[in-house]
Amino acid sequence: MLFHVRMDVSLPHDLDHNRRAELIAAEKDRAVELQKLGVLPHLWRVVGQYGDIGIFDVPSNDELHAFLSSLPLWEFMRVEVTPLAQHPSDLAAQP
Amino acid sequence: MLFHVRMDVSLPHDLDHNRRAELIAAEKDRAVELQKLGVLPHLWRVVGQYGDIGIFDVPSNDELHAFLSSLPLWEFMRVEVTPLAQHPSDLAAQP
Amino acid sequence: MLFHVRMDVSLPHDLDHNRRAELIAAEKDRAVELQKLGVLPHLWRVVGQYGDIGIFDVPSNDELHAFLSSLPLWEFMRVEVTPLAQHPSDLAAQP
Amino acid sequence: MLFHVRMDVSLPHDLDHNRRAELIAAEKDRAVELQKLGVLPHLWRVVGQYGDIGIFDVPSNDELHAFLSSLPLWEFMRVEVTPLAQHPSDLAAQP
Amino acid sequence: MLFHVRMDVSLPHDLDHNRRAELIAAEKDRAVELQKLGVLPHLWRVVGQYGDIGIFDVPSNDELHAFLSSLPLWEFMRVEVTPLAQHPSDLAAQP
Amino acid sequence: MLFHVRMDVSLPHDLDHNRRAELIAAEKDRAVELQKLGVLPHLWRVVGQYGDIGIFDVPSNDELHAFLSSLPLWEFMRVEVTPLAQHPSDLAAQP
Amino acid sequence: MLFHVRMDVSLPHDLDHNRRAELIAAEKDRAVELQKLGVLPHLWRVVGQYGDIGIFDVPSNDELHAFLSSLPLWEFMRVEVTPLAQHPSDLAAQP
Amino acid sequence: MLFHVRMDVSLPHDLDHNRRAELIAAEKDRAVELQKLGVLPHLWRVVGQYGDIGIFDVPSNDELHAFLSSLPLWEFMRVEVTPLAQHPSDLAAQP
Amino acid sequence: MLFHVRMDVSLPHDLDHNRRAELIAAEKDRAVELQKLGVLPHLWRVVGQYGDIGIFDVPSNDELHAFLSSLPLWEFMRVEVTPLAQHPSDLAAQP
Amino acid sequence: MLFHVRMDVSLPHDLDHNRRAELIAAEKDRAVELQKLGVLPHLWRVVGQYGDIGIFDVPSNDELHAFLSSLPLWEFMRVEVTPLAQHPSDLAAQP
Repeated sequence: MLFHVRMDVSLPHDLDHNRRAELIAAEKDRAVELQKLGVLPHLWRVVGQYGDIGIFDVPSNDELHAFLSSLPLWEFMRVEVTPLAQHPSDLAAQP
Repeated sequence: MLFHVRMDVSLPHDLDHNRRAELIAAEKDRAVELQKLGVLPHLWRVVGQYGDIGIFDVPSNDELHAFLSSLPLWEFMRVEVTPLAQHPSDLAAQP
Repeated sequence: MLFHVRMDVSLPHDLDHNRRAELIAAEKDRAVELQKLGVLPHLWRVVGQYGDIGIFDVPSNDELHAFLSSLPLWEFMRVEVTPLAQHPSDLAAQP
Repeated sequence: MLFHVRMDVSLPHDLDHNRRAELIAAEKDRAVELQKLGVLPHLWRVVGQYGDIGIFDVPSNDELHAFLSSLPLWEFMRVEVTPLAQHPSDLAAQP
Repeated sequence: MLFHVRMDVSLPHDLDHNRRAELIAAEKDRAVELQKLGVLPHLWRVVGQYGDIGIFDVPSNDELHAFLSSLPLWEFMRVEVTPLAQHPSDLAAQP
Repeated sequence: MLFHVRMDVSLPHDLDHNRRAELIAAEKDRAVELQKLGVLPHLWRVVGQYGDIGIFDVPSNDELHAFLSSLPLWEFMRVEVTPLAQHPSDLAAQP
Repeated sequence: MLFHVRMDVSLPHDLDHNRRAELIAAEKDRAVELQKLGVLPHLWRVVGQYGDIGIFDVPSNDELHAFLSSLPLWEFMRVEVTPLAQHPSDLAAQP
Repeated sequence: MLFHVRMDVSLPHDLDHNRRAELIAAEKDRAVELQKLGVLPHLWRVVGQYGDIGIFDVPSNDELHAFLSSLPLWEFMRVEVTPLAQHPSDLAAQP
Repeated sequence: MLFHVRMDVSLPHDLDHNRRAELIAAEKDRAVELQKLGVLPHLWRVVGQYGDIGIFDVPSNDELHAFLSSLPLWEFMRVEVTPLAQHPSDLAAQP
Repeated sequence: MLFHVRMDVSLPHDLDHNRRAELIAAEKDRAVELQKLGVLPHLWRVVGQYGDIGIFDVPSNDELHAFLSSLPLWEFMRVEVTPLAQHPSDLAAQP
């Protein structure tokens, strides 16, 4: 089941520099891991932003929330979730 | 080069029924064609909406505009284009 | 899997009166049916609005889209879908 | 009398860690208590957010305000209240 | 129980002139009636607008919805309802 | 002359606790005083908010600004002023 | 007493041409008249818009509403009223 | 003097087809003419939209308004004007 | 050439008190000076706000930017600039 | 390939003064450099704002993101990117 997730990061300018570096490294590790697990089949950066668009493939809403809320940068993100359905014109849906 | 395109369709309720059916059929044919051409690698329906999210893969802005503005339903669409870049945590970008 | 759906209806003032009455009756029949099926465990009217808040219980995004887009009044609705997860303080989640 | 309440929490990143933990624990205790009292028949987490949707059942506006404004995290919440009425298609309203 | 209701009217410019006059007269009669019943203790016009602010005094959400949705101009109104509570600094609340 | 004033208070979480208590007490005293003077014939709390709706009765715009800008919490308020006129359906305006 | 009024005109494209011309001529006559009466000391066109900014000088809210709601184009205007006060740095307010 | 102008066109779907074609041809002629006159040094189409961004070079606000309000499609445009100043980092401003 | 400028001031609550007083005094001096120079023919306070509406009369966009960006409180202002043209119904424009 | 980029800068008022001066000087150097490279053929200041409009000419989305995200002030900017296409009425596109 696919969900479109927009994630915009806003780090406070007075955040401790080591903490900032740790958070960013942990976020990257987690993003790579989620891709390897097949949970995050697509991940793009939005041009000009510290923001991403990801497509999540998960079996349920609860699991999606668990993945998102455990992201290392979640506390500093604005997140917007949009459920996706198969498009009637999707090649895979054609007879 | 990838672009994220949100397309929301709003057909006037007093549109002629034959014209409506023709437009929708033509839109579907074009969407299938763009997928076969590799121009539209992803196309999803937004749950609950007469609206889509598509990822376009095109060589230039001009070509993207040509594809979008020649969609049969373009006149009745609200379109929002977001340029995408490779994400630094994209698996394909890892060493 | 639960989804929160806000549905706001806007019927054109020049819609044929018989068609209007038919649509409203069909919408009511469908709403009753969806409740009997267990698909729509909660349905409320928003005070002062021709608008509803419904909680849908469905196995997938695709099925939710199928239910919503086949509502008799769907063409005249603004729909907003919000996926829900179990709350950590939900009584049912306590040890 | 039912009210739909959206509650979005935003904790300052420089809030003392013990105070944060105390507030969150107190909020959870209160949420469980309100459910046991029947004041909060439904409580969901919004997927991807530190935010909730709750349905409150209270005898008056004044009591709803008293419940909301005494939540431990109220100071850090954006709250939006929507009064609900029985839906004309509600199963319970059918003859 | 008090509710603050903002009502903005927008009549289609091609509405039949007799129907328009009838609706406006009926709306006025109903507004006077609601005041006499004590349901609408305050009613103001917003300067420069075809719009009102009314304070409704009703025993329940359901009754408020019944009053609003039966207003002759309801079909042409944008309505916004805000529940009110007694203010802690209200003279009537002082010891 | 009546004005509808929405006042939303937002106190910084790191404001000194004594200063906070003093401000809130001073605000309450002033609100009571303005009611006794007849300047503030109605004052309500918005359910779920640290925010108010007040109806001010003043002889001029300048005096309204003087009253509002000298409120103890003014510095921490978002204020929205809407001028009101007598409603044509107001009981007091009927022949 | 001064009020800042933004007026944006939107005429339906299918409005009868004679009626359109009459309305525009009547609006101009009324604008000239209000200036001669001293009610409208300033009137500007917003560059690029069919919209105006006017400063009205009136003795009360009720009179402002009467002036605005009797403008020939009022039915087709979006109106926004902002009450003004003397600025503490106004030359006329200096000792 | 430079102004940034965003122009978004919205033609009613029931506009007569000949009138539509005439308007679009006249708009194009005028756009070419303004470029030749040096009034419109830059004109771009926004990708995916029936909308433009133009940079106008005019001696005054009044002349800018005259140019914009006499565009053949002006009646069907949403226009947004932003005044521009020389950037302190502009190459032409460097010593 | 006239420009309508809305200026809203937001001073951080933890700004040093002496600095605050100096800035406000300097802003007032500058506002008086600009009025004496004829650059700021009108300046009003918006009722209920720490915000102003000013009409600037300047020979060019560059000079307007120079005036605005050198205001003592500019760093703490949200500024919105709207270019004005002579109104076709302006008394001064009548034959 | 052209992109329209709006960049609005917001520096925290408690940023260290030396750091602020360094950032602003570095930003200026980089803006001059990008112009010399032909990457930034147009750069304007928005009147009244600490904000810019730039036209970027780059071969790809990825390069645009690299340029923008390495701007010295990027961390403090709100950035909005709009892809541009050749206008059908552009002089250069005429036969």
